[in-house]
Amino acid sequence: MATRVLNATSLARDLGRWRTDADGAPGRRRTSRPTYRALADGVRLLIHDGRIPLGAGLPSERDLSAALDLSRTTITSSYAVLREEGYLISKQGARSTVALPDMARPNGLLVQTRDAAGPVIDLSHAAMAAPTESMMSAYTSALQALPSYLSTHGMEPIGLAVLREAIARRFVERGLPTTPDQIMVTSGAQQAVRLLLGTLTSPGDRILIDHPTYPNALEAIRRVGARPVPVPIGPDDSGWDLEAIAGAARQTASKVAYMIPDFHNPTGRCLHAEGRAELARIARDTSMTLIVDETMVDLWLDAPPPPPVASFGRVSGTDIVTIGSASKSYWGGLRIGWIRANPSLISRLAGSRAAHDLGTSVMDQLAAGFLLEDADSILGARRRQLRERRAVLEAALAEHLPDWSYRRSTGGMSLWLELPTPVSSALAATAPSFGAVLAAGPRFGVEGAFERFLRLPYTREPAELAAAVAATAAAYRALAPNAATREPVLVF
Amino acid sequence: MATRVLNATSLARDLGRWRTDADGAPGRRRTSRPTYRALADGVRLLIHDGRIPLGAGLPSERDLSAALDLSRTTITSSYAVLREEGYLISKQGARSTVALPDMARPNGLLVQTRDAAGPVIDLSHAAMAAPTESMMSAYTSALQALPSYLSTHGMEPIGLAVLREAIARRFVERGLPTTPDQIMVTSGAQQAVRLLLGTLTSPGDRILIDHPTYPNALEAIRRVGARPVPVPIGPDDSGWDLEAIAGAARQTASKVAYMIPDFHNPTGRCLHAEGRAELARIARDTSMTLIVDETMVDLWLDAPPPPPVASFGRVSGTDIVTIGSASKSYWGGLRIGWIRANPSLISRLAGSRAAHDLGTSVMDQLAAGFLLEDADSILGARRRQLRERRAVLEAALAEHLPDWSYRRSTGGMSLWLELPTPVSSALAATAPSFGAVLAAGPRFGVEGAFERFLRLPYTREPAELAAAVAATAAAYRALAPNAATREPVLVF
Repeated sequence: MATRVLNATSLARDLGRWRTDADGAPGRRRTSRPTYRALADGVRLLIHDGRIPLGAGLPSERDLSAALDLSRTTITSSYAVLREEGYLISKQGARSTVALPDMARPNGLLVQTRDAAGPVIDLSHAAMAAPTESMMSAYTSALQALPSYLSTHGMEPIGLAVLREAIARRFVERGLPTTPDQIMVTSGAQQAVRLLLGTLTSPGDRILIDHPTYPNALEAIRRVGARPVPVPIGPDDSGWDLEAIAGAARQTASKVAYMIPDFHNPTGRCLHAEGRAELARIARDTSMTLIVDETMVDLWLDAPPPPPVASFGRVSGTDIVTIGSASKSYWGGLRIGWIRANPSLISRLAGSRAAHDLGTSVMDQLAAGFLLEDADSILGARRRQLRERRAVLEAALAEHLPDWSYRRSTGGMSLWLELPTPVSSALAATAPSFGAVLAAGPRFGVEGAFERFLRLPYTREPAELAAAVAATAAAYRALAPNAATREPVLVF
Repeated sequence: MATRVLNATSLARDLGRWRTDADGAPGRRRTSRPTYRALADGVRLLIHDGRIPLGAGLPSERDLSAALDLSRTTITSSYAVLREEGYLISKQGARSTVALPDMARPNGLLVQTRDAAGPVIDLSHAAMAAPTESMMSAYTSALQALPSYLSTHGMEPIGLAVLREAIARRFVERGLPTTPDQIMVTSGAQQAVRLLLGTLTSPGDRILIDHPTYPNALEAIRRVGARPVPVPIGPDDSGWDLEAIAGAARQTASKVAYMIPDFHNPTGRCLHAEGRAELARIARDTSMTLIVDETMVDLWLDAPPPPPVASFGRVSGTDIVTIGSASKSYWGGLRIGWIRANPSLISRLAGSRAAHDLGTSVMDQLAAGFLLEDADSILGARRRQLRERRAVLEAALAEHLPDWSYRRSTGGMSLWLELPTPVSSALAATAPSFGAVLAAGPRFGVEGAFERFLRLPYTREPAELAAAVAATAAAYRALAPNAATREPVLVF
């Protein structure tokens, strides 16, 4: 295929205050770096941040010099620096494409280690303990309902009618007309992702993804032999770049997109209603099936999300498929997810399911039905708990890591933090010996992007959260003693 | 790859009483068919029965004429008939290979239909209703044990320690030393098959299979892009042909074999101890990983099976991997399976699992642990029930379909019946309108083999079994009015 080429204007916008960032930040002495080096630094940061996808082509020197109002010589020198450092790869007769130098990859990092003294707190998962009383009550009701299912063989590829009805009702309550024959129950949302990719894609197909995105979805994309086409999500106000999505859909002829518009994992962003309408329009116009992962939709913290993306699609269309889950909203030990799609796709999915498994736990299905009946009160408590823990995490960050920046998540289970230096993998490698297990930024991107980012979930007990941030800060200080200078330092 | 070529002596053996079958059956008038036609009929039946794998090359005319003590001209004419009918395909400069003519494929069949009058009984699944009391008791105990798990996030890729310990104990009781770190819990045996294939094979790899075999395993093999290499299992005394397995393993360089030596699905066969030792030796000698599916092992009806195949393998070897399941022994609505392998393979499987799902229902895992504790008494009752139903099915067959033959299954959940005529797909297509849903023989083979076979499970209530056999017989009589003549008639 043709290399995706970045638009010069978009790159100029993404570079933003690159001159300021590099040279003129308040309270820092002005360095004497030439402009071409400052520009290379800016581009390098965008690469590490995942804002410039690896494998993309940079704009032509002429275009970028026009967009940035710089001499062509400056751009040429800047690209030469990037090429020399390994961030640009030139192939005979082809445009230079963006890459990561071997040494900057996680495996190339040399890191300090030490033995952990106290307990190690796992912040690599964004998942909560169960709401004990509600869960016991749901399983108790499930046990009472079980006998009438024991006389069947218990294997139903699309799930129990009673649960499909409850799931359809929840969609209706959110304003999206849905009948049970549009619902298939899966053993968690991840199985839903895998089944959909297996049914909708063939090896070699391109799949548009948010970048960063949910690591296990990326892994499922790799397993079906498809190729992810990352479209950057800004950590700042920019969020979803619908123009870039439309452009990438057209340029790459992607048949499928996988997106998380409701409290996006890991950034916590939520796409506004107009954006949803536009996304639905893009999917329709480009004949691209949009897989909307609503795993986090129940976990809004500040305001409910806009209507489901699928409500902006065609009523009987195949253009938007929705994935939902009870495993994040209620408990991960309850393995229940679902797919909302038109009945003919549901049939195809049911037909292809037997290659994976023969059905979902009947007890879990019954329990999920009871949880959904009582959803509003359970989720209300869940949200209060998450709000409290988000505040605890923010306070701990303000105390221990004041120079890490983030945009407050308005829902979901985590903050997406921007580090002053691209040391995320090294930090994740050393943090356990300081008492915290972390998921490094690059896990959320393709080919090593996001070295300057880290996802921290606010799902654990407040005391654990505070201790884990202190441990993370200690690991960070040991790793990046010169971090306070805000120089873009690569740690090898 | 080179075409697999059938050995002339083996083919002669498999043809067996071909002259008798075609021309000399007792009580039937002798036809005046020439020998070359009778031989072609015999070969055609073996193709329909799956005893000659599609895609295989027939022996050279010279070899077969020697093996059968017939003139070379007879063999040449016989092959010419098969070629003309579409059962042999010749490619320029290559050996003729076995095929099915388009018209003989299930989709090409024209069948009578009518509307069902009474209830339709599903015999397409070999799965039982749950043992109600035991299941309620196990889930009640699970509910009591649940609270201590609700404080965790509930997702454990290798499964709960308490269940892995219980599974390891069951292996130890069967004489196979096993530690919990050799066990991974899966969401049913089918997921185990899929995870193993995904981890052990690459697209294009060859996988040795029993032929016939379990259809969902075949489907999983197709999904991972691997190619099944069928090795016939005889419906008669021959059973597993270990020489053929060794030969196919060497000829095709298969990296993996998937086999069901314990009450094989669908034939109900059980491999004897010496065969297990030999199978383990073949796996070791050919560096082939043998996946032994023990899904049916608990359901022995006449005598317990020999020791696990893995007990004949190397203690720390990677050559034999065992799959087990609680979903057949106890209930399909409880989605619990497991893999026994060396700890390093268990780690690889755990690492690759997240692309499929994030864990197995905690409630089901706890319940399975309690079921395994009480296994002997539950399974004793289960086996009594299956024995009784096997007798009911056999009686109904003797009454309604006396000319269908089978070898009594000594375990498992089904009989594998040989029909006088190759009409299995047509029968499965018409049977629902007579009151029975059937799984046609070709579902258990590759590329349309087994048109003369049908799997009938003895898992349903006795009254339903009797009614379903009567319905099947009615459908069969409507379909094959000349079946009693035992002519090999193809129904189009």
